Amino acid sequence: MYNSKSKPSVLPTGGGATLIDPSDALILLLDHQSGLFQTVKDISVSDLRRNVEVISKLATLLNIPVITTASEPAGTNGPLMPEIHELAPHAVYVPRKGEVNAWDNDGFVAKVRATGRNTLIMAGVWTSVCVMFPALDARAAGYDVYAVLDASGDPSEMASRISLARFVQGGVKPTSTNALLSELHRTWARPEAAELGKLYGLVAPNYAAVAESYARAQQAAREAI
Amino acid sequence: MYNSKSKPSVLPTGGGATLIDPSDALILLLDHQSGLFQTVKDISVSDLRRNVEVISKLATLLNIPVITTASEPAGTNGPLMPEIHELAPHAVYVPRKGEVNAWDNDGFVAKVRATGRNTLIMAGVWTSVCVMFPALDARAAGYDVYAVLDASGDPSEMASRISLARFVQGGVKPTSTNALLSELHRTWARPEAAELGKLYGLVAPNYAAVAESYARAQQAAREAI
Amino acid sequence: MYNSKSKPSVLPTGGGATLIDPSDALILLLDHQSGLFQTVKDISVSDLRRNVEVISKLATLLNIPVITTASEPAGTNGPLMPEIHELAPHAVYVPRKGEVNAWDNDGFVAKVRATGRNTLIMAGVWTSVCVMFPALDARAAGYDVYAVLDASGDPSEMASRISLARFVQGGVKPTSTNALLSELHRTWARPEAAELGKLYGLVAPNYAAVAESYARAQQAAREAI
Amino acid sequence: MYNSKSKPSVLPTGGGATLIDPSDALILLLDHQSGLFQTVKDISVSDLRRNVEVISKLATLLNIPVITTASEPAGTNGPLMPEIHELAPHAVYVPRKGEVNAWDNDGFVAKVRATGRNTLIMAGVWTSVCVMFPALDARAAGYDVYAVLDASGDPSEMASRISLARFVQGGVKPTSTNALLSELHRTWARPEAAELGKLYGLVAPNYAAVAESYARAQQAAREAI
Amino acid sequence: MYNSKSKPSVLPTGGGATLIDPSDALILLLDHQSGLFQTVKDISVSDLRRNVEVISKLATLLNIPVITTASEPAGTNGPLMPEIHELAPHAVYVPRKGEVNAWDNDGFVAKVRATGRNTLIMAGVWTSVCVMFPALDARAAGYDVYAVLDASGDPSEMASRISLARFVQGGVKPTSTNALLSELHRTWARPEAAELGKLYGLVAPNYAAVAESYARAQQAAREAI
Amino acid sequence: MYNSKSKPSVLPTGGGATLIDPSDALILLLDHQSGLFQTVKDISVSDLRRNVEVISKLATLLNIPVITTASEPAGTNGPLMPEIHELAPHAVYVPRKGEVNAWDNDGFVAKVRATGRNTLIMAGVWTSVCVMFPALDARAAGYDVYAVLDASGDPSEMASRISLARFVQGGVKPTSTNALLSELHRTWARPEAAELGKLYGLVAPNYAAVAESYARAQQAAREAI
Amino acid sequence: MYNSKSKPSVLPTGGGATLIDPSDALILLLDHQSGLFQTVKDISVSDLRRNVEVISKLATLLNIPVITTASEPAGTNGPLMPEIHELAPHAVYVPRKGEVNAWDNDGFVAKVRATGRNTLIMAGVWTSVCVMFPALDARAAGYDVYAVLDASGDPSEMASRISLARFVQGGVKPTSTNALLSELHRTWARPEAAELGKLYGLVAPNYAAVAESYARAQQAAREAI
Amino acid sequence: MYNSKSKPSVLPTGGGATLIDPSDALILLLDHQSGLFQTVKDISVSDLRRNVEVISKLATLLNIPVITTASEPAGTNGPLMPEIHELAPHAVYVPRKGEVNAWDNDGFVAKVRATGRNTLIMAGVWTSVCVMFPALDARAAGYDVYAVLDASGDPSEMASRISLARFVQGGVKPTSTNALLSELHRTWARPEAAELGKLYGLVAPNYAAVAESYARAQQAAREAI
Repeated sequence: MYNSKSKPSVLPTGGGATLIDPSDALILLLDHQSGLFQTVKDISVSDLRRNVEVISKLATLLNIPVITTASEPAGTNGPLMPEIHELAPHAVYVPRKGEVNAWDNDGFVAKVRATGRNTLIMAGVWTSVCVMFPALDARAAGYDVYAVLDASGDPSEMASRISLARFVQGGVKPTSTNALLSELHRTWARPEAAELGKLYGLVAPNYAAVAESYARAQQAAREAI
Repeated sequence: MYNSKSKPSVLPTGGGATLIDPSDALILLLDHQSGLFQTVKDISVSDLRRNVEVISKLATLLNIPVITTASEPAGTNGPLMPEIHELAPHAVYVPRKGEVNAWDNDGFVAKVRATGRNTLIMAGVWTSVCVMFPALDARAAGYDVYAVLDASGDPSEMASRISLARFVQGGVKPTSTNALLSELHRTWARPEAAELGKLYGLVAPNYAAVAESYARAQQAAREAI
Repeated sequence: MYNSKSKPSVLPTGGGATLIDPSDALILLLDHQSGLFQTVKDISVSDLRRNVEVISKLATLLNIPVITTASEPAGTNGPLMPEIHELAPHAVYVPRKGEVNAWDNDGFVAKVRATGRNTLIMAGVWTSVCVMFPALDARAAGYDVYAVLDASGDPSEMASRISLARFVQGGVKPTSTNALLSELHRTWARPEAAELGKLYGLVAPNYAAVAESYARAQQAAREAI
Repeated sequence: MYNSKSKPSVLPTGGGATLIDPSDALILLLDHQSGLFQTVKDISVSDLRRNVEVISKLATLLNIPVITTASEPAGTNGPLMPEIHELAPHAVYVPRKGEVNAWDNDGFVAKVRATGRNTLIMAGVWTSVCVMFPALDARAAGYDVYAVLDASGDPSEMASRISLARFVQGGVKPTSTNALLSELHRTWARPEAAELGKLYGLVAPNYAAVAESYARAQQAAREAI
Repeated sequence: MYNSKSKPSVLPTGGGATLIDPSDALILLLDHQSGLFQTVKDISVSDLRRNVEVISKLATLLNIPVITTASEPAGTNGPLMPEIHELAPHAVYVPRKGEVNAWDNDGFVAKVRATGRNTLIMAGVWTSVCVMFPALDARAAGYDVYAVLDASGDPSEMASRISLARFVQGGVKPTSTNALLSELHRTWARPEAAELGKLYGLVAPNYAAVAESYARAQQAAREAI
Repeated sequence: MYNSKSKPSVLPTGGGATLIDPSDALILLLDHQSGLFQTVKDISVSDLRRNVEVISKLATLLNIPVITTASEPAGTNGPLMPEIHELAPHAVYVPRKGEVNAWDNDGFVAKVRATGRNTLIMAGVWTSVCVMFPALDARAAGYDVYAVLDASGDPSEMASRISLARFVQGGVKPTSTNALLSELHRTWARPEAAELGKLYGLVAPNYAAVAESYARAQQAAREAI
Repeated sequence: MYNSKSKPSVLPTGGGATLIDPSDALILLLDHQSGLFQTVKDISVSDLRRNVEVISKLATLLNIPVITTASEPAGTNGPLMPEIHELAPHAVYVPRKGEVNAWDNDGFVAKVRATGRNTLIMAGVWTSVCVMFPALDARAAGYDVYAVLDASGDPSEMASRISLARFVQGGVKPTSTNALLSELHRTWARPEAAELGKLYGLVAPNYAAVAESYARAQQAAREAI
Repeated sequence: MYNSKSKPSVLPTGGGATLIDPSDALILLLDHQSGLFQTVKDISVSDLRRNVEVISKLATLLNIPVITTASEPAGTNGPLMPEIHELAPHAVYVPRKGEVNAWDNDGFVAKVRATGRNTLIMAGVWTSVCVMFPALDARAAGYDVYAVLDASGDPSEMASRISLARFVQGGVKPTSTNALLSELHRTWARPEAAELGKLYGLVAPNYAAVAESYARAQQAAREAI
């Protein structure tokens, strides 16, 4: 049976050869701040926050380390959304000294390196800046980098399309929250399956309604017997 | 001071002459069922459910009666979304006997009449059917009727635009959840203000981020002194 | 029990006071021709045809008379879509003599009058022409007229929005196929319920998937016992 | 047989009771100027110009009088689009003396009155101004007024939707170029049918392709024999 | 010659019979606050603010009184946008005591009545609340009311469409900033023409580029001689 | 003459050098389940199912092997859409043991390898998960992989755009159902041409209307002789 | 001075190093047929045809060879749009024998090779098929290939986005008609400048209005002197 | 402390390894002319101009050289937008002699080379022509090239998507104005921080409102003490 401690990545079938190895993964949540949220135009704030919440819960469920950072949370950009550290109590917050690019900050890069992990999963606001710059720099430094675009936000639809193209051009792998959830989840034959199942109802709210209908239909069938 | 028991509607200024009188209002939530949600195409399921939750909480806060109904909750249409009765425990559920139009059902109309209230606030899935039919019939019966279109749902954008036009043609007043909240709320100088304030962060998620920024900015100012 | 022969319209509750009385209804399908379909830009051809098919089946199920007409089916505009007469074998076809407005045609109006029915349900291509003109003229002649906009088509989104506004201005009631289905259907407690149920899976394809999931969930529950 | 000199409006069937009587119609084309075209955002300039061309040709084919006017054609707003007077040589141009609202101009209103016609068909740029103001004023003066929204243009989608609503509110009948064409055309059994047919290929470019396919299919069938 | 002191409304032609009389007009700017701006989803914040600036300048140019108000400018909703009082120094600010509906506030209604003007031009955030409620109440009190929808904002596209419909249903006249500018402007033969001209470049930024091209073309022609 | 048994791929002209060789192709249909369909937001369920039906029929017509799989068809995700196995009776179903990624499943990969085919054509729900993971893994294993994006579905437009980019980045060839049909079809000079022709009317419903018009035009020409 | 016979491509500045050399270019127009046009959903038929007309005129102006081809012009797909051969009388038509991929046809490839040109500029309907297949095959055969996407058409927006991605993946250079015009045009200092100028008013209809305004402004300036 | 004279690019952390080195950067603003602006359809003229203004101010603040050029500013294309040279007085204007591609012009390329800088940041109208051609040629000449797509403009959405793809294909790095601002800005710990801060309120107008709310909230907190 699959176990979240084990390294699932590459199976004898070759399955997982190209997928994230959770034991090598590190999640970086960059500048998810209330003031910056107001400038996001490629996703609604409610969808954006819900996706960040899913990633936070997922990190906790699967014991994946998380580093957060913010540019001036006491300043105009506003506080970090509190849900992250509530849902991922193991997350470590690194303050910055004015650097726009988190990869410019000594402490941040040191914390990343200290984890010994080489697969970096990044999300943040703005995608084109707070995710793009450290993503490209980390890629140059040899890391395998994923950018979760729908747990991030850009100030226009055009900026968002440009970000996607620039990630691909720079060797960063673009992904979405639902895909990240599945890529780390990998199999329903694991102890956390029920908890993981709930996250699907968050990344795809129609799925929650599917589950409600399913449960009620089964109950009706049992009552009818 | 304003008090939720008093009748706020028409003030000496003439304010409220055209607005809902909460003491005369009755909320009807029609067929908000998980199976029907899958067919809704003019609003996302997450926004739809959140708006229905806001109305449920609002009804509880302001002591406005609520009647719910569903067409065959043990059947294909699925169960009523559970949040309604959780958030509005005073809501009364009326089963139907196969009628598509709730106004065709004896029990439902009897319950409406028993409240003695003449301002009906309706929402449901589909807007063009489950809201439209009882709205038009209630209007013909002399009620003042409001349809909350974003706490309802239709199977296409075109159907949604048609519903809006047909409501206006039939003398039903169209509204949105945020407007309903404000129309019933009326003033911040009331005991429920803080609780009502939270509902604004639900109908407009950016508003929640505004409030977070505001609180943090004030804290920073105080700390800086 | 409800019976499709009986007049369901107005119940003791007042239910149906504002709704279509099926025994007074006549369906007019105007110029649904393959050549004209190519010019429709406010709905996809597949959705348009499927909605016309639903209306045809519905008319057959509920014994509602149907009149079809076409402008020059041997000419550029192309043949009438064959599904209508296949699914509604009782439909009567009236040829025209070049008139754009079906209400200009003696034979057509005579056929309408001969039915003795006063509630006209119209759909056609273009909405703004083939439906609009006879709808306004019939309204002037005292008929109660419904226009089914998503079983009709216009050559631009702007033309479509204009049509909706002009119908309302002219006292024609706008509706959608799903609403028409429900308005004629009225109750699940009738012999045709199972057949009518299938039509819901056509006007809302997600509903068909809901039904599939429901059946499978019940089967699974029964097998698990 | 129908003849363009005869008054087709109301037929013995009642057909045309609510439609434009071409012999009573006057077309007013207001401020279709190259500079103003740049500000139009609710329709492409190519579609807008093509629709105005169709109306100009239609007026010529059916002998309907046309009055044009422009605000300062030597100024920033630019020259009137030349196609109008080329395609409708009988159109009369009325200069204005700075008035935004053509109905404020003595000469313009005098020209309108001199025609003795009471059905005014208006189009212009901006819809919300150059069409709206004379439309509302003419309505107040007792005229029957049509606004052709897709031969007009507004500086935003929102302004365009507002214009449509305000026309309806003010008793002005909204229409589209394709509907106007059909409403004046009325029947294919008339001498101008072939010329009118070409205009359909302009208001609906797919229709031109339909006609090409039709002709080629017939040719192929004949050659195959 | 036209003079901004004179009453232009109804000319001998009948021009202006249905238009705003500037000497009877009063502009009400309601809750244009930085915090509320973040929740607006039917227009960009930059377009919204620019439109409000245009109205402020227009009021100053044409000596039209302006009343502003805000709900709790020291609170979460944020300060009133400063441009209004900068560009319309004659504007009068009325604080409220917690009322959502400005028409509920004694001071506000008293100020409106004191002007003796009966044509109220309203804009605000949210359209569906801060404009809708006083607009409907003022209408009930006998005022002629205009709502400027693109100098206002609603929290969703659906809410925005509903607002437009509800205004029309309630007898409030919907308009856009460009139309308001033209409706008050009325003629280029007036002393303020040059200043008014600049406002057109703000409501329609393409128009500013048209003017730049025009000036340069004329300069080139003169230099070529 | 072309024959579906022969290998058409590379012709003496060089034609087909870059195209799919049908004799080397294997179609993998992954998790097309009724519950998952409800979460798809980048294509309508009716278009999605119709495209999957086209692929199923195409596989049968051209004798291309098909493997289907589903994650828990008795569970929340719902049953596989029945049309696949009805239209492609030769398709082989492989159950999984909880793996999200089909390439993680021994039986599935074994079945793929057993066909000896190296060109894998994949479609499924979600694109970003059920197609992406096996597509990338198969690519890593040396297969030539095509992803049919409109016979697949993702839970948001953004996720869909990301999937397209990630496929390209990973060396997977993106395609659409209409292109796949043509790429396998290759020539009208083959015995299956008439049957293949019908599929074009499904991937492009306007094409069906084109064919109807064509047939009627030819009939009219013949009758006119 | 620049001369259309000379090879402009690479100038001493390095200008043109990456651009099309007109003397090496060959234009291939594939299956622009009236029946297929009806299926195009990523561009309007009027824009598509106008772009193909621009390319045809451009080819004539600059003496660039053109090859056209069609699949069964006497069949359902309809005739080639006649404007191509009217505007580019030097174009050569190559019939096919049922091949979907023009590169599969002996005669077509022979004609291409006979020109001795290595830069192929392709457009056609469908983009994903009629352009994609020969584009990829020609690329494999060593040609430099450009695909003009807005002189082509695909049956859905999704198919269109996929085509763009697949072209890039396959080394085909995507372009638009306006860019092709400029890339071949290269400089206004050439004899054909005036004729080329008119084509800009076709690819960008607003540009035609710019030119009209410019001419009128200059005339006004001259008259004012 | 960071200083704008110093070379910030690569920090000891590796930060900036992939980012623009401001001391090596040169900004090229190509054909931002009033006549061409009218043809832009992928961004509003107001957003486009504001983004170009931001780049101009940014160049001045950070001492980055700017070269502008225009094709025939006395001709139809209209004058260069004056804001560039007003906000970046150090910008150098290079006239062209009819070349569409600035890289074809001796003087332009000489000026570029004379700066000795190797990182070229380009924006212009049209993106697909005036930016694309010199971008590709400069890339071929060994420069590191960035294209700022939202300070540029294309005549259709499709052309815009094609441009983005072609830039990526050709090794040009796509970016947006907000990302460029941040990439050059790099850190808030620099003397120009306050001035740079204002530019964020221009690239993201919601951010200006965030700052207003922040300042007012702090003031309120201080006053409350």
